[in-house]
Amino acid sequence: MFDPVEKLKEFVRHPSVSTDSRFKEGMRGAREFLAGLLRETGFAVEIVPTRLHPIILARRGGDERWPHVIIYGHYDVQPPDPLDLWTTPPFDPVERGDRLCGRGTADNKGPLMTHIAAVARLLEKNPGLPLRLTFLIEGEEEMGSPSFPEFLETHRDELRRADLVFLSDTVIPTEEQVVITCGLRGLVLCDLEVTGAKSDLHSGLHGGVLRNPIQALAELCASLHTPDGRVNVPGFYDGVAPVEAWEREELKKLGGEAEQYRRFLGIPAFHTPPGYTPFEAIRFLPTLEFNGIGGGYQGEGTKTVIPSKALVKISCRLVPDQQPEKIRALLYRTIRERMPADVTFRLIDQHQGVPYVVVPPGRSNTPPDQPAALARAFRATDAAVSEVFGRPPLYLREGGSVPIIADIKRVLGLDSVMLGLFLPEDNLHAPNESFKLSVMQKGMAVSQKVLTALAAG
Amino acid sequence: MFDPVEKLKEFVRHPSVSTDSRFKEGMRGAREFLAGLLRETGFAVEIVPTRLHPIILARRGGDERWPHVIIYGHYDVQPPDPLDLWTTPPFDPVERGDRLCGRGTADNKGPLMTHIAAVARLLEKNPGLPLRLTFLIEGEEEMGSPSFPEFLETHRDELRRADLVFLSDTVIPTEEQVVITCGLRGLVLCDLEVTGAKSDLHSGLHGGVLRNPIQALAELCASLHTPDGRVNVPGFYDGVAPVEAWEREELKKLGGEAEQYRRFLGIPAFHTPPGYTPFEAIRFLPTLEFNGIGGGYQGEGTKTVIPSKALVKISCRLVPDQQPEKIRALLYRTIRERMPADVTFRLIDQHQGVPYVVVPPGRSNTPPDQPAALARAFRATDAAVSEVFGRPPLYLREGGSVPIIADIKRVLGLDSVMLGLFLPEDNLHAPNESFKLSVMQKGMAVSQKVLTALAAG
Repeated sequence: MFDPVEKLKEFVRHPSVSTDSRFKEGMRGAREFLAGLLRETGFAVEIVPTRLHPIILARRGGDERWPHVIIYGHYDVQPPDPLDLWTTPPFDPVERGDRLCGRGTADNKGPLMTHIAAVARLLEKNPGLPLRLTFLIEGEEEMGSPSFPEFLETHRDELRRADLVFLSDTVIPTEEQVVITCGLRGLVLCDLEVTGAKSDLHSGLHGGVLRNPIQALAELCASLHTPDGRVNVPGFYDGVAPVEAWEREELKKLGGEAEQYRRFLGIPAFHTPPGYTPFEAIRFLPTLEFNGIGGGYQGEGTKTVIPSKALVKISCRLVPDQQPEKIRALLYRTIRERMPADVTFRLIDQHQGVPYVVVPPGRSNTPPDQPAALARAFRATDAAVSEVFGRPPLYLREGGSVPIIADIKRVLGLDSVMLGLFLPEDNLHAPNESFKLSVMQKGMAVSQKVLTALAAG
Repeated sequence: MFDPVEKLKEFVRHPSVSTDSRFKEGMRGAREFLAGLLRETGFAVEIVPTRLHPIILARRGGDERWPHVIIYGHYDVQPPDPLDLWTTPPFDPVERGDRLCGRGTADNKGPLMTHIAAVARLLEKNPGLPLRLTFLIEGEEEMGSPSFPEFLETHRDELRRADLVFLSDTVIPTEEQVVITCGLRGLVLCDLEVTGAKSDLHSGLHGGVLRNPIQALAELCASLHTPDGRVNVPGFYDGVAPVEAWEREELKKLGGEAEQYRRFLGIPAFHTPPGYTPFEAIRFLPTLEFNGIGGGYQGEGTKTVIPSKALVKISCRLVPDQQPEKIRALLYRTIRERMPADVTFRLIDQHQGVPYVVVPPGRSNTPPDQPAALARAFRATDAAVSEVFGRPPLYLREGGSVPIIADIKRVLGLDSVMLGLFLPEDNLHAPNESFKLSVMQKGMAVSQKVLTALAAG
């Protein structure tokens, strides 16, 4: 059996940033590394081309009566910038205490390696394990998985015969308290580009006769929230489903100190819509955020220019049952109505994803109709987490988005068991990302136990 | 006599961007080139060190009874970005038709070379010309001339004995209509940096509990103008002096088609405070502009972060008698009052300059007390422009700022004759800057005539 930490380091050294074409070589490297590793572990590996980054499909077949589990992961990572805030180079992984530091260690290379290592150990101990396994590892998750729905459609007949999807790409609050994520927020992303004059202008010679595109953009952005922090797009909240009683109960069990969370974020005060605690807001409410803004001179010193263009990157997080298409239409209509006539603007679609929810067995008063294997997987995970981590997991919706989970449900009809393995302090999507190696060890143990339980039928 | 266009090309090839430390070598090259050229022309050249970019002081002395003219210029230029919008490389000057293209060709290398060439021709024809001349050429104009006031103080005793300053760093509306600028707007510049969380955050995991610094910045920026385009900073307009009747009359003579100006700017509509035409607004009203904004992810695709910081660069243009210190205090107080308590922020001082006004002889009903040489210079310029350009000049305030003109007035007691030589279509401070060579030729003729007239006493 290979050394999972050393293999993870090797994986992280490939700078697989999917969203930036300059990292094409890193994408190829990460993919080939994984393909090799899975072949050594006994899988038949297929590299499925897409319009952009190929998908790895690694199969261990067997008796048709054996349960069939798809393990999902992604080999792409977020861009590493701002680079100057990293303590160690993002693609040169370093162990510091019980952590491995580097871009992608937590999202998603570490958790994915946890499952690959668990499978490798299981198969080493029991080469005849009565379980069919398919690793489905994509390279466009950080771009919103644009090729994934088409891939699911073309592989529908094969994949829909699986029983469930098992994955780790969600967060746990502490190392002591595992969370099984049973809901994810959806996404609508777009860019808004505002143009004033046809070229940059001298702010002295022309200042005072036109609306600066930065001003127009600021005025538009400022209009998109109410003073109390709600999204100010008419109709935005119309599709939001009420929160179930058991969900509020489960969240109470999580506990958590708002003051401690505030200090963790390093903000002077929360800015949460009225009637929701911070912990509720990130799970139960939709948002509209600005992920980036730019225009004019941003360098050293000054440049007295009125820029020709300014751009903002907007993302909405959606909750059940908001529909991305509808939210996009509402947002675009609002922007079109509010933008003044003395500038021009352009809305650029980025990706989107529907929100997802799965109800674990025995929780809801209106229990869903679920296949036996899924319920068994939930129960096995509950037992394994209780044993390995010393405490039963909580079943919570999460603020993040894994749009492919909803796509898998829609196209394949399969639900997912989402075992959280990274911590808030792992700095996902931020400088100095890291992954806790003790969590990796425990995660490997849980994964082995769950797969063993499923194999037992 | 040298070829002025070839010499100008040589000058432009030195990338002398003062505001960016990476261009240090270009600054040195431009300075040494000028020093050499002025020595060849018969000047005693002194390079006066400052805390940043040295000042060139080139003297042609003579009889104490001769008139003494200071010719001002600057050898530094604006940054060339955005580079991808240039048709030809900014520091590789190219002649296209009757234009020389390149960064600094118009601001200020071309107009400065016009006067150097005029002086060279005059001295070639008449080596004993009874005129004392001092070229005063700085390298920090595009940064707001931070070293200039101290330089003036240390050279006060020598320079205050001059009669006037002659320069070309202002605009003319068309090649047919020269403008003598008799007023300039002042400046107050600052950066505002807003900080939310202590590092970039995943917008899914944490979105909904804090005020995004881009949102806080947008809300603040949006608050700084009223819907009708006035600056919304209490007290901002308190110091604005009424416009004199002769100024409005002179501006009417300028004519100008608002529709043509709108098309030149390439904007869908003007956005001018009520009661002012666009031509009045840029001359008679103060402004508050955003020169740049930045924060979060601005690259290709998407990155779902809530950035830790966002920054905006603000500049105010001031008119007589607004005082920069007071305006800065009002602006900072307004920002401090309006910024919400759930983010932190930092105001970073940039440079500032007071507005300037000089009244040409025979215009005002309350004529100022002016030295004879200044009135003579104005009259000689009027006659030379009428002869060479075929139409008398107009006397107008301009929207731009040359803070050193006000500094020269304050420290040396000298007024300036500002002969405009660049055109709106020269793209100052913007990509594809160029300078019209026929204007250069005419400017040389005017400069020779003015200096000859002054020498005649």
